[in-house]
Amino acid sequence: MEAEALVTSLRNQLVDLLGRDTVVTEPHDHEPYCRDWHGDMTSAAVAVLRPRDTGEVAAVVRACRTLDLDIVAQGGNTGLVLGALPDRPERQVVLSLERMRHIRSIDEDDFSAIVEAGCVLEELKLRLEERGLFFPLTLGAQGSCRIGGNVSTNAGGVNVLRYGMTRELVLGLEVVLADGSVWDGLSTLRKDNRGIDLKQLFIGAEGTLGIITAVAIKLSPLPERIETALLGVGDLHTAIALYRHARRACCDLISAFEFMPPSAFTLAREAQPDLPLPIATDYPAYVLIEISSSGLIDAKQLMEGLLEQAMEESLVLDGVIATSQAQARQLWAIREGMNEGQALRGPHLRTDISVPLSRLAEFVAEIGAELDDALPQCLAVAYGHVGDGNVHLNVLPPAGATLAERHALIGQAKKMINFRVDHYHGSFSAEHGIGRLKRDEFEHWISPVHRRLLEALKRAIDPEYRLNPGCQLPSITAR
Amino acid sequence: MEAEALVTSLRNQLVDLLGRDTVVTEPHDHEPYCRDWHGDMTSAAVAVLRPRDTGEVAAVVRACRTLDLDIVAQGGNTGLVLGALPDRPERQVVLSLERMRHIRSIDEDDFSAIVEAGCVLEELKLRLEERGLFFPLTLGAQGSCRIGGNVSTNAGGVNVLRYGMTRELVLGLEVVLADGSVWDGLSTLRKDNRGIDLKQLFIGAEGTLGIITAVAIKLSPLPERIETALLGVGDLHTAIALYRHARRACCDLISAFEFMPPSAFTLAREAQPDLPLPIATDYPAYVLIEISSSGLIDAKQLMEGLLEQAMEESLVLDGVIATSQAQARQLWAIREGMNEGQALRGPHLRTDISVPLSRLAEFVAEIGAELDDALPQCLAVAYGHVGDGNVHLNVLPPAGATLAERHALIGQAKKMINFRVDHYHGSFSAEHGIGRLKRDEFEHWISPVHRRLLEALKRAIDPEYRLNPGCQLPSITAR
Repeated sequence: MEAEALVTSLRNQLVDLLGRDTVVTEPHDHEPYCRDWHGDMTSAAVAVLRPRDTGEVAAVVRACRTLDLDIVAQGGNTGLVLGALPDRPERQVVLSLERMRHIRSIDEDDFSAIVEAGCVLEELKLRLEERGLFFPLTLGAQGSCRIGGNVSTNAGGVNVLRYGMTRELVLGLEVVLADGSVWDGLSTLRKDNRGIDLKQLFIGAEGTLGIITAVAIKLSPLPERIETALLGVGDLHTAIALYRHARRACCDLISAFEFMPPSAFTLAREAQPDLPLPIATDYPAYVLIEISSSGLIDAKQLMEGLLEQAMEESLVLDGVIATSQAQARQLWAIREGMNEGQALRGPHLRTDISVPLSRLAEFVAEIGAELDDALPQCLAVAYGHVGDGNVHLNVLPPAGATLAERHALIGQAKKMINFRVDHYHGSFSAEHGIGRLKRDEFEHWISPVHRRLLEALKRAIDPEYRLNPGCQLPSITAR
Repeated sequence: MEAEALVTSLRNQLVDLLGRDTVVTEPHDHEPYCRDWHGDMTSAAVAVLRPRDTGEVAAVVRACRTLDLDIVAQGGNTGLVLGALPDRPERQVVLSLERMRHIRSIDEDDFSAIVEAGCVLEELKLRLEERGLFFPLTLGAQGSCRIGGNVSTNAGGVNVLRYGMTRELVLGLEVVLADGSVWDGLSTLRKDNRGIDLKQLFIGAEGTLGIITAVAIKLSPLPERIETALLGVGDLHTAIALYRHARRACCDLISAFEFMPPSAFTLAREAQPDLPLPIATDYPAYVLIEISSSGLIDAKQLMEGLLEQAMEESLVLDGVIATSQAQARQLWAIREGMNEGQALRGPHLRTDISVPLSRLAEFVAEIGAELDDALPQCLAVAYGHVGDGNVHLNVLPPAGATLAERHALIGQAKKMINFRVDHYHGSFSAEHGIGRLKRDEFEHWISPVHRRLLEALKRAIDPEYRLNPGCQLPSITAR
């Protein structure tokens, strides 16, 4: 009762300091900000704060210092590791950037733009496409995620193998620091070697070192021709050999290279029963490949040439090239339907692993056999952006399992997988980040030297531990 | 005399701690380590230390702590901003990585390698080429520079527009920290989002935060066909329009795009009187363009197609495509001879500027007119990697000028140029770094918030200010 009164008092003080328009006070209005993307977790906060510009973000930070509140910055709340979900409702606020969605400038001749953190990725991409420009970041959540969140989590997606992670698409940042000051690093220069590159600190820091309010992004010419094909292959090993061949054959113009097991079709059909399946569904494995081009280079010719070579060298058993955009969308619908199908099967283990590409096939075979052996009742599904050495190895408990049984199976599978990942010098978080979900794995993995560096950094940049405490490394970020 | 005795005593103590083999004690043997690449500056040091492995580097750091000495790390000593040149001979040692030149591993299937910091860039490139692999970093100094220095300075070069700066070619690092501990971040993973990306701190820090001892690098397939052409164009504005067109037309397979003024030919001939000039030398401006490809893409067809379009659209006035590797080398010899020719004209102002590409032509025209107006006796030469918005705008005093007159003219030109660069939100160091040469510009440019962040970072990572004090920001790095 006393705690509740305290929270109410804090809310009122926030309204006094920031105005009614910025502060969402009603707990029932907090829900969309305090529930994670998968719907697995709900939380609460003292308030949700929705500033409209950089000055207001700075004012929010100062107000929170005054009231001794901690700040969890949030973009589209589409993260997969609970990085933007408050976990101490009585002393944290959610700072939502959703009202800062202005595109400040687009410079076609410079292939750059400056956008506010709350800009929705898909809206941004469409606005740029109208001008013949391309922002390569492409993710399932792009209709909801926001560019500030993409940068804070260094998002990946399907285009990484050609264009890089978000980090490589960022030219500059504007960041509100823990003391309320604004670091203006919003340059659009492509080359700038003026000392230590401070923006790198904030990319992938999940809001623990500063609050990103605007981003200068690097653009590319819009691809004019996109060719998509679904290929049946012998196994993951061959799929990786195909990728290596394709890199050389197509000068790295491959914009996506997604691996799927045969169960992809079953799972996709469970989510979308009418989904057409354009290829026999009993090959050992599948690859969804996309080649895009502009100007003098003909993506169609490239795709046909690549497949001809790959067939000759027995890297591909069968394949279908989409003959229309509608068919290309259907091929992608299998890849995306696969995710939905897994969700429909109830709580399961989702992982986001990378190992060196040269060892990926061996890794997946080994852990696959171990899981089959130890947990024969579960379905293990390995798929993903294998061109980057990145695989989502998910484990689905059987249909009849209770929630308790599911959690037990998930825990067991996770332990086995993490052990194997360690052994292969891989990463348990290739693209999703750490957040609050992977803190234990992170604690377990980091070396004493790595920990000391992180501690020193946090102390240096956010000495009061006010920004997203509990995220990444609780022992150093929570007060 | 007393100071000399102290230095001798320190030298002897270093030998006691590290062994005779690691310590170069004789001052006359220090010279190659204590003179800058241009030969403009010479300095001295207590000793030059040449460890053979990471453990010995750590031992050097510990010994220097014991003796209260500061450490200037050095690779090939080819830097252009005095970043690796000691400036307090009585309390600094040079730590040369030159004996750590081992390639620890090459993984062809993973397109990655792990190499020690002292590996000479050209040797590394050749070793990789034998295996069909390509490390894209390409610089004038590649026969002498070393990979650790390339990473510490985030080196640029002619291939940046296709492959990025050195930062984008680094997958992992091994770093000896100021307390002698070793941070092992030597992963070859292409995607790894386990929290804050610590390696970014050390890239471009010029040895002020740690000593890089090994690097995991990202490789590409070796280009199989390289086409080179020299084009006459109307002006810089048209050259930039040509680059924009070429990006789309060739899907960013342009591996070099160098701009040169007509004086390039005069200067190159001064250095190499027999250099053949394959094109009329009186066009207003020139572009040296290179397109490289492998597999199914024919660089020759691309180059011919691009030039045909560019002629039609009047972006190019004249052009010659090299018909042999020997001819391609001759075209590059003009670009390189131009540098030598400038050196032969005696001390002059060298700059390394970037501005947003959309404003580069305007910037060069404006500052060009200002310089012609204020310093008509000097020759201003603008050339460089303009595809990245990067231009070297050098100012050459007249032949008869005394050294004092030269210094006065250089100072005046530098002031004018920096003022204009500021005005265009450009960078006074697009690729060369800060070192000791550009400290004043850096001091002048950084905002109070930027300075506070740098100070906090330095204090956090090198609390005794032992690593390369005097480099970048003396006020925060010198004790």
